[in-house]
Amino acid sequence: MAIVLGPNQYGKAEVRLVHVDRSAPAHRITDLTVSTALRGDFAAAHLAGDNAHVLPTDTQKNTVYAFARAGVGEIEEFALRLGRHFVGALPWVTGARIEIEQAGWERIPVGGTGHDHAFTRAGGERRTTVVTMDGETPYVVSGIAGLVVLKSTGSEFWGFPRDRYTTLEETTDRILATEVTARWRLIGVDHDFGAMFTEIRTILLETFASVHSLALQQTLYRMGEAVLAARPEVAEIRMSMPNKHHFLVDLTPFGLDNPNVVFYAADRPYGRIEGSVLRDDAPPAGPAWLTIPGFC
Amino acid sequence: MAIVLGPNQYGKAEVRLVHVDRSAPAHRITDLTVSTALRGDFAAAHLAGDNAHVLPTDTQKNTVYAFARAGVGEIEEFALRLGRHFVGALPWVTGARIEIEQAGWERIPVGGTGHDHAFTRAGGERRTTVVTMDGETPYVVSGIAGLVVLKSTGSEFWGFPRDRYTTLEETTDRILATEVTARWRLIGVDHDFGAMFTEIRTILLETFASVHSLALQQTLYRMGEAVLAARPEVAEIRMSMPNKHHFLVDLTPFGLDNPNVVFYAADRPYGRIEGSVLRDDAPPAGPAWLTIPGFC
Amino acid sequence: MAIVLGPNQYGKAEVRLVHVDRSAPAHRITDLTVSTALRGDFAAAHLAGDNAHVLPTDTQKNTVYAFARAGVGEIEEFALRLGRHFVGALPWVTGARIEIEQAGWERIPVGGTGHDHAFTRAGGERRTTVVTMDGETPYVVSGIAGLVVLKSTGSEFWGFPRDRYTTLEETTDRILATEVTARWRLIGVDHDFGAMFTEIRTILLETFASVHSLALQQTLYRMGEAVLAARPEVAEIRMSMPNKHHFLVDLTPFGLDNPNVVFYAADRPYGRIEGSVLRDDAPPAGPAWLTIPGFC
Amino acid sequence: MAIVLGPNQYGKAEVRLVHVDRSAPAHRITDLTVSTALRGDFAAAHLAGDNAHVLPTDTQKNTVYAFARAGVGEIEEFALRLGRHFVGALPWVTGARIEIEQAGWERIPVGGTGHDHAFTRAGGERRTTVVTMDGETPYVVSGIAGLVVLKSTGSEFWGFPRDRYTTLEETTDRILATEVTARWRLIGVDHDFGAMFTEIRTILLETFASVHSLALQQTLYRMGEAVLAARPEVAEIRMSMPNKHHFLVDLTPFGLDNPNVVFYAADRPYGRIEGSVLRDDAPPAGPAWLTIPGFC
Repeated sequence: MAIVLGPNQYGKAEVRLVHVDRSAPAHRITDLTVSTALRGDFAAAHLAGDNAHVLPTDTQKNTVYAFARAGVGEIEEFALRLGRHFVGALPWVTGARIEIEQAGWERIPVGGTGHDHAFTRAGGERRTTVVTMDGETPYVVSGIAGLVVLKSTGSEFWGFPRDRYTTLEETTDRILATEVTARWRLIGVDHDFGAMFTEIRTILLETFASVHSLALQQTLYRMGEAVLAARPEVAEIRMSMPNKHHFLVDLTPFGLDNPNVVFYAADRPYGRIEGSVLRDDAPPAGPAWLTIPGFC
Repeated sequence: MAIVLGPNQYGKAEVRLVHVDRSAPAHRITDLTVSTALRGDFAAAHLAGDNAHVLPTDTQKNTVYAFARAGVGEIEEFALRLGRHFVGALPWVTGARIEIEQAGWERIPVGGTGHDHAFTRAGGERRTTVVTMDGETPYVVSGIAGLVVLKSTGSEFWGFPRDRYTTLEETTDRILATEVTARWRLIGVDHDFGAMFTEIRTILLETFASVHSLALQQTLYRMGEAVLAARPEVAEIRMSMPNKHHFLVDLTPFGLDNPNVVFYAADRPYGRIEGSVLRDDAPPAGPAWLTIPGFC
Repeated sequence: MAIVLGPNQYGKAEVRLVHVDRSAPAHRITDLTVSTALRGDFAAAHLAGDNAHVLPTDTQKNTVYAFARAGVGEIEEFALRLGRHFVGALPWVTGARIEIEQAGWERIPVGGTGHDHAFTRAGGERRTTVVTMDGETPYVVSGIAGLVVLKSTGSEFWGFPRDRYTTLEETTDRILATEVTARWRLIGVDHDFGAMFTEIRTILLETFASVHSLALQQTLYRMGEAVLAARPEVAEIRMSMPNKHHFLVDLTPFGLDNPNVVFYAADRPYGRIEGSVLRDDAPPAGPAWLTIPGFC
Repeated sequence: MAIVLGPNQYGKAEVRLVHVDRSAPAHRITDLTVSTALRGDFAAAHLAGDNAHVLPTDTQKNTVYAFARAGVGEIEEFALRLGRHFVGALPWVTGARIEIEQAGWERIPVGGTGHDHAFTRAGGERRTTVVTMDGETPYVVSGIAGLVVLKSTGSEFWGFPRDRYTTLEETTDRILATEVTARWRLIGVDHDFGAMFTEIRTILLETFASVHSLALQQTLYRMGEAVLAARPEVAEIRMSMPNKHHFLVDLTPFGLDNPNVVFYAADRPYGRIEGSVLRDDAPPAGPAWLTIPGFC
């Protein structure tokens, strides 16, 4: 028996980058949080403290900023440029992982028109991507996080099995609320990523709204199915959807009924529903999902 | 010399209430976080553990939920109803403080139309109110929090004094970014609170966008001044505006210029600018600002 | 009627400073978060964007770091040095507010002895101070935050009034848990601040532990009273103590009793108990409590 | 091509449980956050909204509380009991995942002795476990999270490769600070889990303190190696160690030197070092690491 080094990676996490495109009077801003990680032969650093292979995380940060000078474009494209650079830069680097989260900004309307250079944050939603380089081969997983949605009716939950620990009552009308995290693995890397994101976001929202829900699992599946039906380049989609419970408050002690009007929004615990929808002929995922937090 | 009890208050904090108005096919949801506090004669509880005067915080929570059954309306109105109830309920309760934060929800558009009962969270912004009852006399301070804004140009900072610790360079073009917390004290309690909020929010945004900024203090003052000019019922407005620094990244080591294109968005430290704008004939504030966090 | 500028202040918030005292083989580290604010005549900046009086917040940050070079000492002393400097530096600066939070670090024990230069963070507690300069006159409010404590018995709550919204049952045995924030205003500025903090922290903990609690208000008062009894330089103490509810879980549906064994620790809502204890001959507080968040 | 359901799981997340052992005058408290997830045949719920297989997450929560009535013991044992219950309860449940985080509490010392029933929170550290049931076969991964450590000297970083984006200077003396997350996979399930945790925590701390660090990777490896050398039941350990940068402040503009005395503690970005150490004859991991966030 011997004790050996196993898988490892290292990089710079959460590089905060804001890019201003001033090429037209109406500026465009791109607000990113970029995390890089390198994989390869870093055994000497671990075993002997020899850093000859360890491109500093400070250098990785500098590279992110320097690459942004020429423009960012879609986050998938920026991540691919960075990933290819790192894998090509040093022979002992055999893989890389570039994760980007993009925060949205909207123009402030002044007199009915969006302002040229004044913006307000568009909520807590983030557009995401994780690009994994396996040698020269890229894998792209795009997504959305922080998409908080709620239905005030059109959600049921009944017909579930009961055991000795079951006290929950069946319901044919409840509030359904969740915060969607979705990640979709793409086939190939040449896509109109911006248009794709916009369409998938719309599909997720419209499907959540339109499906009469008998189970959060059903809603999740239908959302994923709709994305795959619309976008042939999506091989697979994985979703994590907490069931953010809204409990009907019992007002009978105060002589009041409560016909689904007054709810207590609970923090913890919460249900957690995780699932994936995929094509049965999807190409192999390779390392695409490696070290992506959450469901896999 | 004696050791004595000083000012005190107690209540229930952060009651999470979601109200669904189902009176029309298009539901309306109201998402509130309500905190209550009572003031009065609670000396026996402090000095002897005698709770004869201590209406339980659990009861205060129940009251919030029970009152919501009849409808919430504007948050100021709901807070006034609760505040008047608590002050009137028990003779030893001489004051109350009701703080409400409202989270926004927008209808999910489906086929171009807002859905009847499906919603998505409208960002991190909250509409706020603090109603303070001093006996039967109400004081209302309304506000907004979490309004994140950014200008990509139209902001300068120069002409400041320099001492031996000053290294900052002057600039005639910088990013100006902040997260506005504003609270406005109202004259009287009979207002169209919803319309007032909408107009003040618009004024704050438009003024931030339109003012060419020579100092964040100047922007703050102009925002407050514009609110007071437009809304005669506002006696005073207090604002806290962190200067969320966006530092230009030095790309010269990489042979690149950086004409205000690539920025590092810093977390800490940050500037903090706090100021108030008021009418010189404003009625006295009384206890309106008491225990409101931040600038006073 | 005219619209005028009201009270205002500005500064640099949350300067993260770690000082290493290497004067002996056993290093000592001081981990501070410092926030500065200046008060005075800043009207021109607000009204005209004229920064001739606005010592940059960047300069304030530099000053914090430069002053630390000569050693930090107790946080109250460091805040006093900074406050006096700012008030003395520029004629239009008539006041200052220096807030410091200190995080604790403990030596890692190796072979039974504390290591010379390796440390581990000592929990979420922070020692705090707010020094307010009113011209040349200093006011010192020291404190503690994040002190989380729990009693598994020795707490009752009964004898409270009941109204139509009261459903809470009386109890003679409950869990009492809170996160203490305490701030004590000092008479004078020449004290052994370190020893004072250590003793007050001990008094707060021991009193919480030892008092059989009939009300959280009673516990709060007894804690404050004990501090004032022990430390004559404390004029006043203010405390905020959330009642972090631990609800007994009803196990009867599963055929089980629950004699105060299994609890659900709730997040929100929570009770919030705020109170102050003071000497009846305490000198006036002046601006000591101005803009300190929370109870006042 | 068909669109199909992929891997999925669901359960209740973050059940907050506090257990009080009152069997002796000196109470013992166990503070847990428990998350459960079930795997198996839930296709009908996803595809048709048929919940016949969906044991409610509410029931899972109830089960956690009911099981705690008989005592919790070590978190690994409690997780194993829950995992075995869920897998055995319903034929379509073929797997389960029980994750537990334990917060530490220490007795408040009163007069030199730990109090019987008054406690204070012991920092931000958590002891963790994830038990995965693959049918009847259990896998146990235990760990620690939130262990914040710092060395004020004894850390170097030099000899790294330089490319056109490298500006970092070499150093032979820097602050090394990190927040350790470590998870160790166990061989078998019959261990003295409490003693094991205590010893491994000690080893992690002592090794961090004692190793003169040439690279954070080296420190990480040595910490993992020491754990495996001491505990034969550990098959593998995975660690994530952010490099929490402490930058030396340049005081030369103020005429001051700075011989490693005054540091700026940065929030973001930070380095992120992830690595694993294992036995070359370790048994297969199976699904032990599935859906554990972070490095894998």
